[in-house]
Amino acid sequence: MSRRITVGVIGCGYWGPNLIRNFVENEAAELSWICDRDARRLEMVGRRYPFARRTRDYGELLADARLDAVAIATPVATHYEFARAALRAGKHVLVEKPFTTSVREAEDLIGLAERGGLVLMVDHTFVYTGAVRKIKEIVERGELGELLYFDSVRINLGIFQTDVNVVWDLAPHDLSIMDYVVGRDPLAVVANGSCHIEQGIENIAYVMLRFDDSFIAHFHFNWLSPVKIRRTLIAGSRRMIVYDDIEPTEKVRVYDKGVTREVNGDKETAYQTLVSYRTGDVWVPKLDSTEALKHVCAEFLSAIGEKRRPLTDGEAGLRVVRLLEAAQTSIASGGQPVRLR
Amino acid sequence: MSRRITVGVIGCGYWGPNLIRNFVENEAAELSWICDRDARRLEMVGRRYPFARRTRDYGELLADARLDAVAIATPVATHYEFARAALRAGKHVLVEKPFTTSVREAEDLIGLAERGGLVLMVDHTFVYTGAVRKIKEIVERGELGELLYFDSVRINLGIFQTDVNVVWDLAPHDLSIMDYVVGRDPLAVVANGSCHIEQGIENIAYVMLRFDDSFIAHFHFNWLSPVKIRRTLIAGSRRMIVYDDIEPTEKVRVYDKGVTREVNGDKETAYQTLVSYRTGDVWVPKLDSTEALKHVCAEFLSAIGEKRRPLTDGEAGLRVVRLLEAAQTSIASGGQPVRLR
Amino acid sequence: MSRRITVGVIGCGYWGPNLIRNFVENEAAELSWICDRDARRLEMVGRRYPFARRTRDYGELLADARLDAVAIATPVATHYEFARAALRAGKHVLVEKPFTTSVREAEDLIGLAERGGLVLMVDHTFVYTGAVRKIKEIVERGELGELLYFDSVRINLGIFQTDVNVVWDLAPHDLSIMDYVVGRDPLAVVANGSCHIEQGIENIAYVMLRFDDSFIAHFHFNWLSPVKIRRTLIAGSRRMIVYDDIEPTEKVRVYDKGVTREVNGDKETAYQTLVSYRTGDVWVPKLDSTEALKHVCAEFLSAIGEKRRPLTDGEAGLRVVRLLEAAQTSIASGGQPVRLR
Amino acid sequence: MSRRITVGVIGCGYWGPNLIRNFVENEAAELSWICDRDARRLEMVGRRYPFARRTRDYGELLADARLDAVAIATPVATHYEFARAALRAGKHVLVEKPFTTSVREAEDLIGLAERGGLVLMVDHTFVYTGAVRKIKEIVERGELGELLYFDSVRINLGIFQTDVNVVWDLAPHDLSIMDYVVGRDPLAVVANGSCHIEQGIENIAYVMLRFDDSFIAHFHFNWLSPVKIRRTLIAGSRRMIVYDDIEPTEKVRVYDKGVTREVNGDKETAYQTLVSYRTGDVWVPKLDSTEALKHVCAEFLSAIGEKRRPLTDGEAGLRVVRLLEAAQTSIASGGQPVRLR
Repeated sequence: MSRRITVGVIGCGYWGPNLIRNFVENEAAELSWICDRDARRLEMVGRRYPFARRTRDYGELLADARLDAVAIATPVATHYEFARAALRAGKHVLVEKPFTTSVREAEDLIGLAERGGLVLMVDHTFVYTGAVRKIKEIVERGELGELLYFDSVRINLGIFQTDVNVVWDLAPHDLSIMDYVVGRDPLAVVANGSCHIEQGIENIAYVMLRFDDSFIAHFHFNWLSPVKIRRTLIAGSRRMIVYDDIEPTEKVRVYDKGVTREVNGDKETAYQTLVSYRTGDVWVPKLDSTEALKHVCAEFLSAIGEKRRPLTDGEAGLRVVRLLEAAQTSIASGGQPVRLR
Repeated sequence: MSRRITVGVIGCGYWGPNLIRNFVENEAAELSWICDRDARRLEMVGRRYPFARRTRDYGELLADARLDAVAIATPVATHYEFARAALRAGKHVLVEKPFTTSVREAEDLIGLAERGGLVLMVDHTFVYTGAVRKIKEIVERGELGELLYFDSVRINLGIFQTDVNVVWDLAPHDLSIMDYVVGRDPLAVVANGSCHIEQGIENIAYVMLRFDDSFIAHFHFNWLSPVKIRRTLIAGSRRMIVYDDIEPTEKVRVYDKGVTREVNGDKETAYQTLVSYRTGDVWVPKLDSTEALKHVCAEFLSAIGEKRRPLTDGEAGLRVVRLLEAAQTSIASGGQPVRLR
Repeated sequence: MSRRITVGVIGCGYWGPNLIRNFVENEAAELSWICDRDARRLEMVGRRYPFARRTRDYGELLADARLDAVAIATPVATHYEFARAALRAGKHVLVEKPFTTSVREAEDLIGLAERGGLVLMVDHTFVYTGAVRKIKEIVERGELGELLYFDSVRINLGIFQTDVNVVWDLAPHDLSIMDYVVGRDPLAVVANGSCHIEQGIENIAYVMLRFDDSFIAHFHFNWLSPVKIRRTLIAGSRRMIVYDDIEPTEKVRVYDKGVTREVNGDKETAYQTLVSYRTGDVWVPKLDSTEALKHVCAEFLSAIGEKRRPLTDGEAGLRVVRLLEAAQTSIASGGQPVRLR
Repeated sequence: MSRRITVGVIGCGYWGPNLIRNFVENEAAELSWICDRDARRLEMVGRRYPFARRTRDYGELLADARLDAVAIATPVATHYEFARAALRAGKHVLVEKPFTTSVREAEDLIGLAERGGLVLMVDHTFVYTGAVRKIKEIVERGELGELLYFDSVRINLGIFQTDVNVVWDLAPHDLSIMDYVVGRDPLAVVANGSCHIEQGIENIAYVMLRFDDSFIAHFHFNWLSPVKIRRTLIAGSRRMIVYDDIEPTEKVRVYDKGVTREVNGDKETAYQTLVSYRTGDVWVPKLDSTEALKHVCAEFLSAIGEKRRPLTDGEAGLRVVRLLEAAQTSIASGGQPVRLR
């Protein structure tokens, strides 16, 4: 690409500065704007990047005809407004996860991007980690055999959020990982949760996804756990993966374990000898330790350059939001299954 | 007690020999009969206890007027028949878990025992472990504050059962622990499961219990996990327990962690500073390492001697069976909540 | 082999019954005698094997012309007397570790066995575990590259011995493992220890072995550790092994880690870039879980049948005793290096 | 204190910027100078602190009559020259660990500071961590009973140093911890090491300290370990501590374990029943998580303000250097014990 892509970042809170730093370090990008409503924060972050223009009004940023792309790192409630305005102004857009607060908003943004021929990407950061990319590679090579289940636990003594519950806070991570690794659409969601701190804001939740066969996915999210656990089991008929994100380096373990089932004529008597468990070596692959966000920014920029869809496009964001919305509905109904389409 | 209680054990498979050994080692008991349909097994086990009479016909055992009590360690499908016959023959009865295959059977046995003035006990072994008794003691002293949730994971690459699914196989452990420690009756059960090996026999299941307030209990049972996990979180408003049964000695950890919530007038602005997390020391109490089954047998014998209800009586067994039955119904309905009573 | 080898076991304490059981289960052997000074113990163990003759006098056992072989599982102080008498009586001999209390005794027994054409074997049990055999296999294939060091920690809150110190109690395990895996003779021993419980009986000791190059071996033995650790590091220039015997199944981990050193002309300036650390996958091989003692007995019997030296022969036992003796000397001198030969 | 203490920092490499940041954040200090030979590094670090003067010549810094104190974070070989010049210029001095390259240098600096009435402090950072201060507090309260041994392992796949060996690189941490916690002077050092990468630079070393009684201290330092271990055992007659610095929060565990010894008349027969092991609860105290270096800087500043000796004064630095020097001598002699004084 001959010319650098000019990027503006809206939101300088917790995640914004990381996006800014990664765009600055990427040769294909030129950070041209940073924007935040809070003047002090804008000043503090901006000081490190004197070459970027600053504004508290995102309209000013979008009005710059030389600006190619916008990254939005603001609270989820504002994603729709900012992304819509950016797309209407003809900018490519990268949005923090969760994509939007509703399916309707997500679909609207996807439509806008399509009609404008613009790149719309959601920052599902975990999809770009060395661990998840290695898992995807193993699954794609068919090493696990037929996938049986996906079980994820993401719990700790977390910072209590006042605007979203534990599902909207933590589930985007695991749902985007599952969406990427498994690549299948669930049929129904059953979710249960409970509020121990503030009425109406669940701090513990269990989310279950059903598919059109025996594959099953389950998630435990919790802000009130005495111990920190971030562990995902991905079981296949031939091998099984344990992904433990707390482990400093050995995050992915591939177990050469499985179950072999053979059904023959005389099932009644012969059954027990026909189901056999197999257990072999464990393999702990070395992982790429590059910061995931570096890959996120690179993917956004090269999708723009190559005029293609990014790996985690608006549709990926929509799939996750659809599950979040359904989980919320199921929780509100006391655990009734919610069918998806 | 002047005279020893005479005990007969029906079933010499996996668990029966452990019961036999513990009755033999208990001064208050006299092992007078052992019974098994399989002649070879009967011979093998019986050789070690030449003083006990052997029979393949439990009717012969029950016909012995000098026999006081019977312990039943056979497959669950036969519990009802054997226990009913024993109670009708005027014997005190100890039954392996799960108590029965249905609520109806359990209620029938409880009625029989009451009318006969007989002790009816269910061998909820875990209730008698040093770990669970220590947890009960901590909860009873109120050290955890208000109970918030109970979360249990019991998974491993297990032996596939052909007669029962993973819920009937593993859940009796955790449900009886919860029943004992928490001492509350759930309002509804939501359960989901999946069959990967044999149609109709779930090898993975998630069971959720709702109560009349925000307390929530959740269980993950799994025969197809690459790793063995036996961990229960019991969270209270003041302290939290992690019970890890894999740990050789440090099974119970008490975390001085909690959340403090204060609501004041101006909730909107002040909220975030009013929810504060507290984190302090961790305490790992020393546990009684006596074999739990020794306590089970002692409790059975002293309940007979003292003509009182045992700790895990028929009602405790019934409460667990009620949950198992409801979980099965919920799984069959694709995760619909099943209300209890 | 047409005829079964008749075996007598002397010593029915802690380890003897395990030997007896394994000889009974081996088709090539016939347990014909068991011997113990303690009548009660002899009776208790003997009851299970009514076909074996019993005696409290080992002379009676050795006088049986039909007896082929003797296994000695008595306190170390008596090994020499019993083994010498057995060899003189023309019996093949298997001795518990440590082989003898001195180099002189060990050499004497080796000479006796050679002159009599008899098998003399030392029960270095760990050498026959699945873990150590897998490690040996990896080392022999050259997968570790050049061996750099061997570091072993064997500590716990142990049972205090009144006849031997912690070195004679625990070191035979690790020294025999090192002897088998590394297959090299040390040049010198430096050992330090301390007595906290009983004067003259060290309960903590550090033993260091030097070789004729930069390879180094170090051992930490301790009866007064609050935690149980059994971990050995075996580092090579290409790969490194961590052998953790506490792990229930994943005892051996092979790290694809190493250091690459290149020396070029301009060492001063270029050095740092020339030493490069390499880190790759971790591999956890599945291990044979057969009881090690089964292999011990099989090796003893087949060495007798094939008239060959067993894997852990008298020489192997002597090499370990030589190190134990030197370590004791070094400790007594306050850590002075003791040269071997 | 009415006036702020003016501080200059010499050395802007790995550690210097941390010192600078902590002095800037301390109200009692005023960062007035930063100094580094490397112009680029000086510029990079200096940009963040525009109020501090910069120089590549430490002489210029020392010539500033308004400068009160100097912190030296340069390679150990230069500590003596810089500290001596600073003390001669009448500045208070904080030196990185290890203090100096020799006992002679350390004694010289101590003399200079004393004659000048200046504060001389060594940055034994670990002494100021929450973990080590908690351990010190427990030991001082006598909770461990009589101290029996100190055993420390500090190993990992480390960055190979070209100027110092693994002892000079890693031992200052553990020796300063032991010096602080135990507070006793060893009588002799036995050390062994080996060079696998570069001749003359040990990458693995074992260091043993003897005292005038049965207390013993041992250290394992290693740059070539496949796994990272930072664990210290501190055993007392009544309780034992395991300090695991890898643990994110539960670094200190206090085991209520010990051994009780009673000697009575008839030792021979009664001995075994008189040594009894006691095992009780484990306690994991909450630790202060303040950055240790914040305490280091505060201690330096308040020692200056209060005209008193700091906790880790020149004498503490000297005691550690004396052990490093003796360990080096012992290694060079092939493990000969080196007596101290």
